[in-house]
Amino acid sequence: MTLTSQQVRQLLDQAVASATQMELQVCVAVVDSGANPLGFLRMDEAFLGSSDVAQRKARTAVLFRCPTDAFGKVIEQEKLLGMSGSNQGLCAFGGGLPILHNGQLLGGIGISGATAEQDQQIAAAALATLFQRQ
Amino acid sequence: MTLTSQQVRQLLDQAVASATQMELQVCVAVVDSGANPLGFLRMDEAFLGSSDVAQRKARTAVLFRCPTDAFGKVIEQEKLLGMSGSNQGLCAFGGGLPILHNGQLLGGIGISGATAEQDQQIAAAALATLFQRQ
Amino acid sequence: MTLTSQQVRQLLDQAVASATQMELQVCVAVVDSGANPLGFLRMDEAFLGSSDVAQRKARTAVLFRCPTDAFGKVIEQEKLLGMSGSNQGLCAFGGGLPILHNGQLLGGIGISGATAEQDQQIAAAALATLFQRQ
Amino acid sequence: MTLTSQQVRQLLDQAVASATQMELQVCVAVVDSGANPLGFLRMDEAFLGSSDVAQRKARTAVLFRCPTDAFGKVIEQEKLLGMSGSNQGLCAFGGGLPILHNGQLLGGIGISGATAEQDQQIAAAALATLFQRQ
Repeated sequence: MTLTSQQVRQLLDQAVASATQMELQVCVAVVDSGANPLGFLRMDEAFLGSSDVAQRKARTAVLFRCPTDAFGKVIEQEKLLGMSGSNQGLCAFGGGLPILHNGQLLGGIGISGATAEQDQQIAAAALATLFQRQ
Repeated sequence: MTLTSQQVRQLLDQAVASATQMELQVCVAVVDSGANPLGFLRMDEAFLGSSDVAQRKARTAVLFRCPTDAFGKVIEQEKLLGMSGSNQGLCAFGGGLPILHNGQLLGGIGISGATAEQDQQIAAAALATLFQRQ
Repeated sequence: MTLTSQQVRQLLDQAVASATQMELQVCVAVVDSGANPLGFLRMDEAFLGSSDVAQRKARTAVLFRCPTDAFGKVIEQEKLLGMSGSNQGLCAFGGGLPILHNGQLLGGIGISGATAEQDQQIAAAALATLFQRQ
Repeated sequence: MTLTSQQVRQLLDQAVASATQMELQVCVAVVDSGANPLGFLRMDEAFLGSSDVAQRKARTAVLFRCPTDAFGKVIEQEKLLGMSGSNQGLCAFGGGLPILHNGQLLGGIGISGATAEQDQQIAAAALATLFQRQ
Protein backbone atom coordinates (compact mmCIF):
# COMPACT_ATOMS: atom_id res chain seq x y z
CA MET A 1 0.00 0.00 0.00
CA THR A 2 1.36 3.35 -1.00
CA LEU A 3 0.22 6.95 -0.85
CA THR A 4 -1.50 7.99 -4.06
CA SER A 5 -0.63 11.23 -5.80
CA GLN A 6 -4.15 12.33 -4.88
CA GLN A 7 -3.46 11.76 -1.19
CA VAL A 8 -0.19 13.64 -1.47
CA ARG A 9 -1.99 16.66 -2.86
CA GLN A 10 -4.52 16.45 -0.03
CA LEU A 11 -1.67 16.48 2.47
CA LEU A 12 -0.01 19.46 0.81
CA ASP A 13 -3.29 21.38 0.56
CA GLN A 14 -4.32 20.58 4.11
CA ALA A 15 -0.96 21.60 5.54
CA VAL A 16 -1.06 24.87 3.63
CA ALA A 17 -4.63 25.49 4.83
CA SER A 18 -3.65 24.88 8.46
CA ALA A 19 -0.61 27.11 8.21
CA THR A 20 -2.66 29.84 6.55
CA GLN A 21 -5.22 29.68 9.33
CA MET A 22 -2.41 30.02 11.90
CA GLU A 23 -0.96 32.93 9.87
CA LEU A 24 2.28 31.04 9.31
CA GLN A 25 4.38 30.49 6.18
CA VAL A 26 5.90 27.04 5.85
CA CYS A 27 7.36 24.48 3.49
CA VAL A 28 5.63 21.10 3.24
CA ALA A 29 7.31 17.89 2.09
CA VAL A 30 5.86 14.40 1.66
CA VAL A 31 7.94 11.27 1.04
CA ASP A 32 7.04 7.63 0.44
CA SER A 33 7.95 4.59 2.54
CA GLY A 34 11.33 4.51 0.77
CA ALA A 35 11.99 8.07 1.98
CA ASN A 36 11.85 9.27 -1.62
CA PRO A 37 10.13 12.56 -2.56
CA LEU A 38 6.43 12.51 -3.46
CA GLY A 39 5.38 16.12 -3.09
CA PHE A 40 6.57 19.54 -1.96
CA LEU A 41 5.24 23.08 -1.67
CA ARG A 42 6.84 26.31 -0.44
CA MET A 43 4.31 28.90 0.70
CA ASP A 44 4.70 32.57 -0.19
CA GLU A 45 7.17 34.25 2.19
CA ALA A 46 8.35 31.00 3.77
CA PHE A 47 12.06 30.95 4.62
CA LEU A 48 14.16 29.82 1.67
CA GLY A 49 16.08 27.56 4.05
CA SER A 50 12.94 25.76 5.19
CA SER A 51 12.70 23.79 1.93
CA ASP A 52 15.58 21.53 2.83
CA VAL A 53 14.55 21.29 6.49
CA ALA A 54 11.01 20.18 5.60
CA GLN A 55 12.38 17.48 3.31
CA ARG A 56 14.79 16.30 6.00
CA LYS A 57 11.99 16.06 8.54
CA ALA A 58 9.84 13.97 6.20
CA ARG A 59 12.76 11.66 5.41
CA THR A 60 13.83 11.36 9.06
CA ALA A 61 10.30 10.36 10.14
CA VAL A 62 10.37 7.50 7.63
CA LEU A 63 14.00 6.46 8.10
CA PHE A 64 13.51 5.92 11.83
CA ARG A 65 9.72 5.43 11.82
CA CYS A 66 8.98 8.03 14.48
CA PRO A 67 8.13 11.71 14.95
CA THR A 68 11.22 13.86 14.56
CA ASP A 69 10.88 15.40 18.02
CA ALA A 70 10.92 11.94 19.63
CA PHE A 71 13.91 11.08 17.47
CA GLY A 72 15.68 14.19 18.74
CA LYS A 73 15.11 13.21 22.35
CA VAL A 74 16.65 9.78 21.75
CA ILE A 75 19.68 11.34 20.05
CA GLU A 76 20.19 13.66 22.98
CA GLN A 77 19.64 11.09 25.74
CA GLU A 78 21.72 8.40 24.11
CA LYS A 79 24.37 10.89 22.96
CA LEU A 80 24.24 9.57 19.41
CA LEU A 81 27.08 11.69 18.07
CA GLY A 82 27.08 11.91 14.29
CA MET A 83 23.56 10.48 13.95
CA SER A 84 21.98 13.74 12.79
CA GLY A 85 24.55 13.99 10.00
CA SER A 86 23.83 10.49 8.69
CA ASN A 87 21.61 9.62 5.73
CA GLN A 88 22.62 12.78 3.89
CA GLY A 89 21.36 14.83 6.80
CA LEU A 90 18.54 14.24 9.25
CA CYS A 91 16.44 16.66 11.24
CA ALA A 92 15.95 15.86 14.90
CA PHE A 93 13.33 18.32 16.15
CA GLY A 94 9.58 18.63 15.82
CA GLY A 95 7.74 18.96 12.52
CA GLY A 96 8.18 15.55 10.92
CA LEU A 97 5.70 12.69 11.32
CA PRO A 98 5.55 9.18 9.91
CA ILE A 99 2.37 8.44 7.94
CA LEU A 100 0.89 5.23 9.32
CA HIS A 101 -2.30 3.41 8.36
CA ASN A 102 -3.40 0.26 10.15
CA GLY A 103 0.10 -0.09 11.52
CA GLN A 104 1.72 0.12 8.11
CA LEU A 105 4.27 2.83 7.24
CA LEU A 106 3.14 4.66 4.11
CA GLY A 107 5.54 7.61 4.19
CA GLY A 108 6.35 10.77 6.05
CA ILE A 109 5.44 14.44 6.17
CA GLY A 110 7.71 17.30 7.16
CA ILE A 111 6.82 20.91 7.91
CA SER A 112 9.31 23.74 8.42
CA GLY A 113 9.02 27.49 8.78
CA ALA A 114 7.55 28.18 12.21
CA THR A 115 8.50 26.89 15.66
CA ALA A 116 9.04 23.16 15.98
CA GLU A 117 5.79 22.88 17.95
CA GLN A 118 3.79 24.78 15.34
CA ASP A 119 5.40 22.81 12.52
CA GLN A 120 4.41 19.55 14.20
CA GLN A 121 0.88 20.83 14.81
CA ILE A 122 0.49 21.57 11.10
CA ALA A 123 1.83 18.13 10.19
CA ALA A 124 -0.58 16.46 12.59
CA ALA A 125 -3.53 18.46 11.26
CA ALA A 126 -2.73 17.37 7.70
CA LEU A 127 -2.44 13.72 8.70
CA ALA A 128 -5.68 13.85 10.69
CA THR A 129 -7.70 14.46 7.55
CA LEU A 130 -5.92 11.98 5.34
CA PHE A 131 -7.96 8.85 5.86
CA GLN A 132 -11.21 10.62 6.72
CA ARG A 133 -11.59 12.13 3.30
CA GLN A 134 -11.63 8.94 1.34
CA MET B 1 8.16 39.58 -9.35
CA THR B 2 8.03 36.00 -8.17
CA LEU B 3 5.78 33.02 -8.75
CA THR B 4 3.08 32.76 -6.10
CA SER B 5 2.36 29.51 -4.35
CA GLN B 6 -0.99 29.59 -6.14
CA GLN B 7 0.73 29.75 -9.53
CA VAL B 8 3.02 26.91 -8.54
CA ARG B 9 0.04 24.72 -7.73
CA GLN B 10 -1.54 25.62 -11.08
CA LEU B 11 1.64 24.54 -12.83
CA LEU B 12 1.78 21.24 -10.93
CA ASP B 13 -1.92 20.53 -11.55
CA GLN B 14 -1.76 21.45 -15.20
CA ALA B 15 1.32 19.33 -15.83
CA VAL B 16 -0.32 16.35 -14.12
CA ALA B 17 -3.49 16.90 -16.16
CA SER B 18 -1.53 16.99 -19.43
CA ALA B 19 0.43 13.87 -18.54
CA THR B 20 -2.74 12.06 -17.53
CA GLN B 21 -4.36 12.94 -20.84
CA MET B 22 -1.30 11.56 -22.66
CA GLU B 23 -1.43 8.44 -20.45
CA LEU B 24 2.02 9.18 -19.05
CA GLN B 25 3.39 9.16 -15.50
CA VAL B 26 5.85 11.91 -14.68
CA CYS B 27 7.47 13.95 -11.95
CA VAL B 28 6.97 17.73 -12.01
CA ALA B 29 9.31 20.23 -10.36
CA VAL B 30 9.04 24.01 -10.15
CA VAL B 31 11.83 26.30 -8.94
CA ASP B 32 12.10 30.08 -8.43
CA SER B 33 14.43 32.51 -10.22
CA GLY B 34 17.20 31.59 -7.77
CA ALA B 35 16.84 27.92 -8.79
CA ASN B 36 15.44 27.08 -5.35
CA PRO B 37 12.54 24.59 -4.97
CA LEU B 38 8.96 25.88 -4.98
CA GLY B 39 6.89 22.79 -5.73
CA PHE B 40 7.11 19.13 -6.68
CA LEU B 41 4.79 16.23 -7.43
CA ARG B 42 5.45 12.60 -8.37
CA MET B 43 2.56 10.93 -10.15
CA ASP B 44 1.49 7.38 -9.33
CA GLU B 45 3.74 4.88 -11.09
CA ALA B 46 6.28 7.48 -12.22
CA PHE B 47 9.89 6.29 -12.13
CA LEU B 48 11.49 6.80 -8.73
CA GLY B 49 14.56 8.17 -10.51
CA SER B 50 12.57 10.83 -12.31
CA SER B 51 12.25 12.94 -9.16
CA ASP B 52 15.85 14.07 -9.27
CA VAL B 53 15.82 14.47 -13.05
CA ALA B 54 12.75 16.70 -12.98
CA GLN B 55 14.37 18.92 -10.36
CA ARG B 56 17.60 19.11 -12.33
CA LYS B 57 15.71 20.12 -15.45
CA ALA B 58 13.88 22.91 -13.62
CA ARG B 59 17.14 24.15 -12.11
CA THR B 60 19.06 23.94 -15.38
CA ALA B 61 16.42 25.99 -17.20
CA VAL B 62 16.86 28.77 -14.65
CA LEU B 63 20.63 28.55 -14.25
CA PHE B 64 21.20 29.02 -17.98
CA ARG B 65 17.90 30.75 -18.87
CA CYS B 66 16.97 28.39 -21.71
CA PRO B 67 15.09 25.18 -22.47
CA THR B 68 17.11 22.15 -21.42
CA ASP B 69 17.09 20.65 -24.92
CA ALA B 70 18.65 23.80 -26.38
CA PHE B 71 21.18 23.74 -23.56
CA GLY B 72 22.02 20.13 -24.45
CA LYS B 73 22.65 21.05 -28.07
CA VAL B 74 25.11 23.78 -27.04
CA ILE B 75 26.96 21.38 -24.73
CA GLU B 76 27.25 18.83 -27.53
CA GLN B 77 28.23 21.27 -30.28
CA GLU B 78 30.72 23.15 -28.16
CA LYS B 79 32.00 19.97 -26.46
CA LEU B 80 31.57 21.48 -23.01
CA LEU B 81 33.14 18.60 -21.06
CA GLY B 82 32.22 18.75 -17.39
CA MET B 83 29.41 21.27 -17.86
CA SER B 84 26.61 18.79 -17.17
CA GLY B 85 28.22 17.86 -13.84
CA SER B 86 28.41 21.45 -12.65
CA ASN B 87 25.95 23.18 -10.32
CA GLN B 88 25.35 19.94 -8.38
CA GLY B 89 24.20 18.25 -11.53
CA LEU B 90 22.43 19.65 -14.56
CA CYS B 91 20.17 17.98 -17.08
CA ALA B 92 20.85 18.68 -20.74
CA PHE B 93 17.93 17.14 -22.64
CA GLY B 94 14.32 18.12 -23.18
CA GLY B 95 11.77 18.61 -20.43
CA GLY B 96 12.93 21.75 -18.66
CA LEU B 97 11.72 25.24 -19.53
CA PRO B 98 12.41 28.67 -18.07
CA ILE B 99 9.30 30.52 -16.88
CA LEU B 100 9.35 33.96 -18.42
CA HIS B 101 6.82 36.79 -18.14
CA ASN B 102 7.29 40.08 -19.98
CA GLY B 103 10.93 39.16 -20.50
CA GLN B 104 11.58 38.55 -16.82
CA LEU B 105 12.78 35.18 -15.51
CA LEU B 106 10.39 33.99 -12.81
CA GLY B 107 11.60 30.42 -12.42
CA GLY B 108 11.71 27.08 -14.17
CA ILE B 109 9.68 23.92 -14.64
CA GLY B 110 11.06 20.43 -15.17
CA ILE B 111 9.20 17.28 -16.24
CA SER B 112 10.68 13.78 -16.24
CA GLY B 113 9.24 10.31 -16.77
CA ALA B 114 8.45 9.99 -20.47
CA THR B 115 10.53 10.73 -23.57
CA ALA B 116 12.37 14.05 -23.62
CA GLU B 117 9.97 15.28 -26.29
CA GLN B 118 6.89 14.29 -24.30
CA ASP B 119 8.35 15.76 -21.11
CA GLN B 120 8.92 19.04 -22.88
CA GLN B 121 5.42 18.99 -24.36
CA ILE B 122 3.96 18.61 -20.86
CA ALA B 123 6.11 21.44 -19.53
CA ALA B 124 5.02 23.70 -22.39
CA ALA B 125 1.35 22.86 -21.85
CA ALA B 126 1.60 23.78 -18.19
CA LEU B 127 3.33 27.08 -18.96
CA ALA B 128 0.79 27.95 -21.66
CA THR B 129 -1.99 28.18 -19.10
CA LEU B 130 -0.04 30.02 -16.42
CA PHE B 131 -0.73 33.63 -17.27
CA GLN B 132 -4.09 33.02 -18.94
CA ARG B 133 -5.73 31.86 -15.74
CA GLN B 134 -5.11 34.97 -13.77
CA MET C 1 15.28 44.64 -6.83
CA THR C 2 18.69 43.02 -6.76
CA LEU C 3 22.18 44.03 -5.69
CA THR C 4 24.19 45.37 -8.60
CA SER C 5 27.71 44.17 -9.26
CA GLN C 6 28.80 47.69 -8.37
CA GLN C 7 27.16 47.42 -4.95
CA VAL C 8 28.77 44.03 -4.39
CA ARG C 9 32.20 45.51 -5.03
CA GLN C 10 31.43 48.34 -2.61
CA LEU C 11 30.53 45.77 0.05
CA LEU C 12 33.71 43.78 -0.56
CA ASP C 13 35.89 46.90 -0.54
CA GLN C 14 34.27 48.36 2.54
CA ALA C 15 34.54 45.11 4.49
CA VAL C 16 38.22 44.82 3.57
CA ALA C 17 38.77 48.46 4.58
CA SER C 18 37.12 47.90 7.96
CA ALA C 19 39.08 44.73 8.63
CA THR C 20 42.32 46.46 7.64
CA GLN C 21 41.62 49.30 10.04
CA MET C 22 41.01 46.74 12.81
CA GLU C 23 44.22 44.93 11.80
CA LEU C 24 42.30 41.78 11.01
CA GLN C 25 42.43 39.37 8.06
CA VAL C 26 39.10 38.01 6.89
CA CYS C 27 37.16 36.46 4.04
CA VAL C 28 34.14 38.34 2.71
CA ALA C 29 31.24 36.72 0.85
CA VAL C 30 28.15 38.30 -0.68
CA VAL C 31 25.14 36.35 -1.98
CA ASP C 32 21.88 37.37 -3.66
CA SER C 33 18.33 36.89 -2.34
CA GLY C 34 18.37 33.33 -3.69
CA ALA C 35 21.48 32.58 -1.60
CA ASN C 36 23.57 32.32 -4.76
CA PRO C 37 27.14 33.74 -4.88
CA LEU C 38 27.67 37.32 -6.05
CA GLY C 39 31.13 38.19 -4.78
CA PHE C 40 33.98 36.95 -2.62
CA LEU C 41 37.40 38.12 -1.44
CA ARG C 42 40.03 36.50 0.78
CA MET C 43 42.41 38.97 2.36
CA ASP C 44 46.14 38.28 2.59
CA GLU C 45 46.90 35.98 5.52
CA ALA C 46 43.24 35.15 6.20
CA PHE C 47 42.62 31.55 7.30
CA LEU C 48 42.18 29.22 4.35
CA GLY C 49 39.22 27.68 6.16
CA SER C 50 37.45 31.01 6.50
CA SER C 51 36.44 31.01 2.84
CA ASP C 52 33.79 28.38 3.31
CA VAL C 53 32.66 29.82 6.65
CA ALA C 54 32.15 33.30 5.17
CA GLN C 55 30.06 31.85 2.35
CA ARG C 56 27.98 29.80 4.80
CA LYS C 57 27.33 32.88 6.91
CA ALA C 58 26.15 34.88 3.90
CA ARG C 59 23.90 32.03 2.78
CA THR C 60 22.50 31.40 6.26
CA ALA C 61 21.56 35.07 6.69
CA VAL C 62 19.50 34.87 3.49
CA LEU C 63 18.05 31.40 4.00
CA PHE C 64 16.58 32.36 7.38
CA ARG C 65 16.43 36.15 6.92
CA CYS C 66 18.28 37.03 10.12
CA PRO C 67 21.76 37.69 11.51
CA THR C 68 23.66 34.44 12.00
CA ASP C 69 24.23 35.09 15.71
CA ALA C 70 20.49 35.43 16.31
CA PHE C 71 19.97 32.26 14.28
CA GLY C 72 22.51 30.48 16.49
CA LYS C 73 20.66 31.51 19.65
CA VAL C 74 17.39 30.08 18.30
CA ILE C 75 19.10 26.79 17.38
CA GLU C 76 20.57 26.52 20.87
CA GLN C 77 17.44 27.52 22.78
CA GLU C 78 15.11 25.38 20.72
CA LYS C 79 17.62 22.51 20.51
CA LEU C 80 17.24 22.29 16.74
CA LEU C 81 19.42 19.19 16.25
CA GLY C 82 20.48 18.78 12.65
CA MET C 83 19.51 22.32 11.62
CA SER C 84 23.09 23.56 11.23
CA GLY C 85 23.85 20.70 8.84
CA SER C 86 20.91 21.48 6.57
CA ASN C 87 21.04 23.47 3.34
CA GLN C 88 24.51 22.12 2.52
CA GLY C 89 25.83 23.52 5.74
CA LEU C 90 24.82 26.60 7.66
CA CYS C 91 26.76 28.78 10.07
CA ALA C 92 25.08 29.70 13.32
CA PHE C 93 27.35 32.25 14.98
CA GLY C 94 28.04 35.92 14.38
CA GLY C 95 29.39 37.38 11.16
CA GLY C 96 26.52 36.98 8.71
CA LEU C 97 23.87 39.63 8.08
CA PRO C 98 20.91 39.85 5.73
CA ILE C 99 21.00 42.80 3.35
CA LEU C 100 17.67 44.60 3.60
CA HIS C 101 16.46 47.74 1.86
CA ASN C 102 13.02 49.20 2.51
CA GLY C 103 12.02 45.91 4.07
CA GLN C 104 13.04 43.87 1.04
CA LEU C 105 15.66 41.11 1.24
CA LEU C 106 18.36 41.81 -1.33
CA GLY C 107 20.97 39.27 -0.22
CA GLY C 108 23.42 38.52 2.54
CA ILE C 109 26.98 39.23 3.61
CA GLY C 110 29.25 36.91 5.57
CA ILE C 111 32.58 37.67 7.21
CA SER C 112 34.93 35.08 8.72
CA GLY C 113 38.47 35.19 10.07
CA ALA C 114 38.33 37.01 13.40
CA THR C 115 36.08 36.54 16.44
CA ALA C 116 32.37 36.22 15.74
CA GLU C 117 31.84 39.67 17.27
CA GLN C 118 34.54 41.26 15.13
CA ASP C 119 33.27 39.48 12.02
CA GLN C 120 29.79 40.84 12.64
CA GLN C 121 31.15 44.33 13.28
CA ILE C 122 32.89 44.27 9.90
CA ALA C 123 29.74 43.03 8.18
CA ALA C 124 27.68 45.79 9.81
CA ALA C 125 30.22 48.46 8.82
CA ALA C 126 30.07 47.34 5.19
CA LEU C 127 26.28 47.37 5.15
CA ALA C 128 26.13 50.79 6.80
CA THR C 129 27.74 52.42 3.79
CA LEU C 130 25.82 50.52 1.12
CA PHE C 131 22.85 52.78 0.54
CA GLN C 132 24.55 56.01 1.55
CA ARG C 133 26.99 55.93 -1.34
CA GLN C 134 24.44 55.89 -4.09
CA MET D 1 55.18 33.63 -3.79
CA THR D 2 51.44 34.05 -3.72
CA LEU D 3 48.90 36.34 -5.31
CA THR D 4 48.11 39.30 -3.09
CA SER D 5 44.55 40.35 -2.40
CA GLN D 6 45.42 43.49 -4.35
CA GLN D 7 46.37 41.44 -7.40
CA VAL D 8 43.19 39.40 -7.08
CA ARG D 9 41.12 42.57 -7.20
CA GLN D 10 43.06 43.72 -10.26
CA LEU D 11 42.26 40.42 -11.96
CA LEU D 12 38.57 40.69 -11.11
CA ASP D 13 38.36 44.32 -12.23
CA GLN D 14 40.28 43.72 -15.43
CA ALA D 15 38.17 40.70 -16.37
CA VAL D 16 34.99 42.68 -15.74
CA ALA D 17 36.35 45.58 -17.80
CA SER D 18 37.19 43.28 -20.72
CA ALA D 19 33.81 41.57 -20.61
CA THR D 20 32.05 44.94 -20.46
CA GLN D 21 33.97 46.13 -23.50
CA MET D 22 32.93 42.97 -25.36
CA GLU D 23 29.32 43.51 -24.18
CA LEU D 24 29.34 40.20 -22.34
CA GLN D 25 28.19 39.23 -18.83
CA VAL D 26 30.38 36.74 -17.03
CA CYS D 27 31.42 35.32 -13.70
CA VAL D 28 35.07 35.62 -12.69
CA ALA D 29 36.82 33.34 -10.20
CA VAL D 30 40.40 33.43 -8.93
CA VAL D 31 42.02 30.66 -6.87
CA ASP D 32 45.45 30.26 -5.28
CA SER D 33 48.11 27.63 -5.99
CA GLY D 34 46.25 25.27 -3.63
CA ALA D 35 43.11 25.63 -5.79
CA ASN D 36 41.39 27.43 -2.91
CA PRO D 37 39.15 30.47 -3.53
CA LEU D 38 40.70 33.95 -3.48
CA GLY D 39 38.13 36.08 -5.26
CA PHE D 40 34.89 35.98 -7.20
CA LEU D 41 32.50 38.36 -8.94
CA ARG D 42 29.25 37.78 -10.83
CA MET D 43 28.42 40.54 -13.27
CA ASP D 44 24.87 41.88 -13.62
CA GLU D 45 22.80 39.60 -15.84
CA ALA D 46 25.40 36.81 -15.94
CA PHE D 47 23.92 33.32 -15.92
CA LEU D 48 23.29 32.08 -12.39
CA GLY D 49 24.86 28.76 -13.41
CA SER D 50 28.10 30.41 -14.50
CA SER D 51 29.23 30.97 -10.91
CA ASP D 52 30.04 27.33 -10.36
CA VAL D 53 31.49 26.90 -13.84
CA ALA D 54 33.90 29.83 -13.41
CA GLN D 55 35.10 28.42 -10.11
CA ARG D 56 35.58 24.97 -11.66
CA LYS D 57 37.62 26.44 -14.50
CA ALA D 58 39.91 28.29 -12.11
CA ARG D 59 40.39 25.17 -9.99
CA THR D 60 40.95 22.91 -13.01
CA ALA D 61 43.64 25.20 -14.41
CA VAL D 62 45.55 24.91 -11.12
CA LEU D 63 44.88 21.24 -10.43
CA PHE D 64 46.38 20.21 -13.76
CA ARG D 65 48.53 23.30 -14.38
CA CYS D 66 47.20 24.02 -17.88
CA PRO D 67 44.52 25.98 -19.73
CA THR D 68 41.15 24.26 -19.44
CA ASP D 69 40.72 23.95 -23.20
CA ALA D 70 44.03 22.07 -23.52
CA PHE D 71 42.94 19.89 -20.61
CA GLY D 72 39.70 19.11 -22.46
CA LYS D 73 41.59 18.01 -25.55
CA VAL D 74 43.70 15.61 -23.51
CA ILE D 75 40.62 14.15 -21.84
CA GLU D 76 39.01 13.59 -25.22
CA GLN D 77 42.07 12.18 -26.99
CA GLU D 78 43.09 9.91 -24.14
CA LYS D 79 39.48 8.95 -23.38
CA LEU D 80 39.92 9.77 -19.70
CA LEU D 81 36.48 8.58 -18.60
CA GLY D 82 35.49 9.95 -15.22
CA MET D 83 38.27 12.54 -15.16
CA SER D 84 35.93 15.53 -15.52
CA GLY D 85 33.93 14.37 -12.51
CA SER D 86 36.99 14.07 -10.28
CA ASN D 87 38.14 16.66 -7.73
CA GLN D 88 34.56 17.60 -6.90
CA GLY D 89 34.00 18.48 -10.52
CA LEU D 90 36.32 19.87 -13.16
CA CYS D 91 35.63 21.93 -16.25
CA ALA D 92 37.32 20.81 -19.44
CA PHE D 93 36.66 23.57 -21.96
CA GLY D 94 38.04 27.03 -22.56
CA GLY D 95 37.91 29.85 -20.04
CA GLY D 96 40.31 28.74 -17.32
CA LEU D 97 44.01 29.66 -17.24
CA PRO D 98 46.81 28.95 -14.79
CA ILE D 99 48.49 32.07 -13.41
CA LEU D 100 52.22 31.68 -13.91
CA HIS D 101 55.05 34.07 -13.09
CA ASN D 102 58.65 33.24 -13.92
CA GLY D 103 57.64 29.62 -14.30
CA GLN D 104 55.99 29.45 -10.91
CA LEU D 105 52.31 28.56 -10.48
CA LEU D 106 50.58 31.29 -8.46
CA GLY D 107 46.96 30.31 -9.02
CA GLY D 108 44.24 30.16 -11.63
CA ILE D 109 41.53 32.28 -13.16
CA GLY D 110 38.22 31.06 -14.56
CA ILE D 111 35.68 32.94 -16.65
CA SER D 112 32.20 31.67 -17.55
CA GLY D 113 29.17 33.22 -19.21
CA ALA D 114 29.98 33.59 -22.90
CA THR D 115 31.40 31.13 -25.44
CA ALA D 116 34.44 29.13 -24.35
CA GLU D 117 36.58 31.17 -26.73
CA GLN D 118 35.31 34.49 -25.42
CA ASP D 119 35.67 33.32 -21.82
CA GLN D 120 39.29 32.38 -22.47
CA GLN D 121 39.94 35.69 -24.21
CA ILE D 122 38.70 37.56 -21.14
CA ALA D 123 40.85 35.42 -18.85
CA ALA D 124 43.91 36.06 -21.01
CA ALA D 125 43.25 39.81 -21.09
CA ALA D 126 43.08 39.92 -17.30
CA LEU D 127 46.30 37.96 -16.92
CA ALA D 128 48.12 40.12 -19.47
CA THR D 129 47.83 43.16 -17.23
CA LEU D 130 48.68 41.43 -13.97
CA PHE D 131 52.43 41.84 -13.84
CA GLN D 132 52.57 45.02 -15.90
CA ARG D 133 50.71 47.07 -13.35
CA GLN D 134 53.09 46.59 -10.52
